[in-house]
Amino acid sequence: MIEVYGHGGDLRTASETFGLPEGEFIDFSANMNPFGPPPGVVRWLAEGEAASLLAHYPDPACRSLRRQLAAKYGVDEACVWIGNGAAELIDLALRVLAPATTLIARPCFVEYEQAAVKAGSRLREYRMPAEEGFALTPGDAFLRAADESDAIVLGHPNNPTGRLPDPELLEAVRARLSPGQTLVLDEAFLDFHEDERRFSWLRRAASDPQVIVLRSMTKFYAVPGIRLGFVVAVPETIERIRALQTPWSVNAFAQRIGELAIGDEAYEANTRGWLREERPWLEERLKEAGLRVCGGGVTNYVLAEIPPRTGWTAAKLQAALGRRGILIRDASRFAGLGSGHIRLAVRLRSDNERLVSALKQTLNG
Amino acid sequence: MIEVYGHGGDLRTASETFGLPEGEFIDFSANMNPFGPPPGVVRWLAEGEAASLLAHYPDPACRSLRRQLAAKYGVDEACVWIGNGAAELIDLALRVLAPATTLIARPCFVEYEQAAVKAGSRLREYRMPAEEGFALTPGDAFLRAADESDAIVLGHPNNPTGRLPDPELLEAVRARLSPGQTLVLDEAFLDFHEDERRFSWLRRAASDPQVIVLRSMTKFYAVPGIRLGFVVAVPETIERIRALQTPWSVNAFAQRIGELAIGDEAYEANTRGWLREERPWLEERLKEAGLRVCGGGVTNYVLAEIPPRTGWTAAKLQAALGRRGILIRDASRFAGLGSGHIRLAVRLRSDNERLVSALKQTLNG
Repeated sequence: MIEVYGHGGDLRTASETFGLPEGEFIDFSANMNPFGPPPGVVRWLAEGEAASLLAHYPDPACRSLRRQLAAKYGVDEACVWIGNGAAELIDLALRVLAPATTLIARPCFVEYEQAAVKAGSRLREYRMPAEEGFALTPGDAFLRAADESDAIVLGHPNNPTGRLPDPELLEAVRARLSPGQTLVLDEAFLDFHEDERRFSWLRRAASDPQVIVLRSMTKFYAVPGIRLGFVVAVPETIERIRALQTPWSVNAFAQRIGELAIGDEAYEANTRGWLREERPWLEERLKEAGLRVCGGGVTNYVLAEIPPRTGWTAAKLQAALGRRGILIRDASRFAGLGSGHIRLAVRLRSDNERLVSALKQTLNG
Repeated sequence: MIEVYGHGGDLRTASETFGLPEGEFIDFSANMNPFGPPPGVVRWLAEGEAASLLAHYPDPACRSLRRQLAAKYGVDEACVWIGNGAAELIDLALRVLAPATTLIARPCFVEYEQAAVKAGSRLREYRMPAEEGFALTPGDAFLRAADESDAIVLGHPNNPTGRLPDPELLEAVRARLSPGQTLVLDEAFLDFHEDERRFSWLRRAASDPQVIVLRSMTKFYAVPGIRLGFVVAVPETIERIRALQTPWSVNAFAQRIGELAIGDEAYEANTRGWLREERPWLEERLKEAGLRVCGGGVTNYVLAEIPPRTGWTAAKLQAALGRRGILIRDASRFAGLGSGHIRLAVRLRSDNERLVSALKQTLNG
């Protein structure tokens, strides 16, 4: 059980649990871009120039990075604010909204619930049906729950299912919002999607006071160690988020790394091209290995289930693979999932082959 | 006016305001150790090894750094928690305490008020008398105010005066605390003091549930760009702070830099030796230049006042020196101070000489 401190990717705990050095794990438990950070970022660190940023306070308003992000996504700078990871912005958004009731659709990222509880909100949950592969589609039950909630927080796409909510459902939710209700979309993984621009609600959030979009920069650019995310909302909401945020919350390294990362179009195209090929390949191999794969996913991770007849649970499989230096996410801890659910990051082919081979040997051995 | 975004040290705004490149300012507005970051930190960055920390989540519990800090200060690890700068911990401490009334002694660091307001607290202020050089000494007025407050937040030493509250006063405040009242001491600058161990309440905070001590690591180790602070309190309070903190709030670089910094005893001794010599030297020269110096300070910054008869205000002097590449803090913006108050960091001798020379030429020119 390596999820005690984090949500996967906690190599420290993995090392203590499985008795291998931190560097010897192949990590399928955290959903990072397997190409690693963009070359410009690595080069900047290698040049040692970073030391010059240490001895001065960071720009408290992150002006350069906000300007770049605003230009990249075609929104006004006043609609963009930077956070110490998207996790800080989820907290801040919910504190600003102070919803009496927050609706989430389970299974989903545990932070939505934690942020809602920290903000003093009551939680309402909608269970996406397992028999429909956890699809979030237009339906009366979800819309009725949304009608009675002050904030509706959805992964766009969802984590851990990897699926996008049905666009028609989102439109229906938005159309039915009363004044005072807000739709919060977490687009932490949407930049992996080839049609990011078509699906993203980012530009709508810049003009619609009842929509807030959260973005992580640490998954796509593989820089979770430094913490970086942003939020897009109307300027009035941004101002309220800013007022609650701890001063200088975004460190100078994160700001510079963000600036260096977002301009690398070759890296972005390469990443999206890799995922287009690799995700279907991995899904097929996982099925061959005897797993059930949650269909319809668009992200750099795959939700799968170990059939009960194998006798394996996610917890047992995590331990068995962990001892072999392969970390997977025990997804049974997501409310709404069962004891056989695992979540696997899509990595580069050679790593994925090692995963599949280890899975086959373990499950059938 | 360069305090619009930060509290000094905002080179970006200074550059935009005064039309000089960011690198050309001598910064007396932020109170950093003028020796710059410890050599081990600079070396680590120069070696480019930092890139290896980028692609993994930071340890969410900061286990290595907490262990080192606990050993250094002789407290239990369960009494130490790390923050994304001390600023985050001020916010978290006040959210955890949720005081109906928070007492501050003005002039003081503006974050205490901001954190109290963000936490929904009413603010009570005690004005330290200018005619006594803003000393905080045993007196009925302060103790009565403390009796009626749920949280009492004091700089220890104070910013901007640089003075330690009278130890007898602190003892009296503590002795009179009723259950539910908490004394919060901000020791962000205490590590510059030669007698840090004698004055610090850090070890008391580890066993006294009504005392919380905050520490910054960015001033003494000159690493404000990366954000790092810690809090010492009883384990029950630490647990409540942890529960409210954003996950992974402390980035991996900050953790590593903290670990590298705190072991450098030569750097620490050198810094304290420099301040013992340089602070009195600078105070004397400032007096010669015609300024009134707030006596009794122990920190790496000096509060001073421009006499009204000179015709200069802090704002005007800041602008005049800014154009010459010298940044000072316009302290008139601290509630409780007047239009002539400035705050000056103590720097290395050659910089201090340039400051004194520029002050003399400007004020008497």
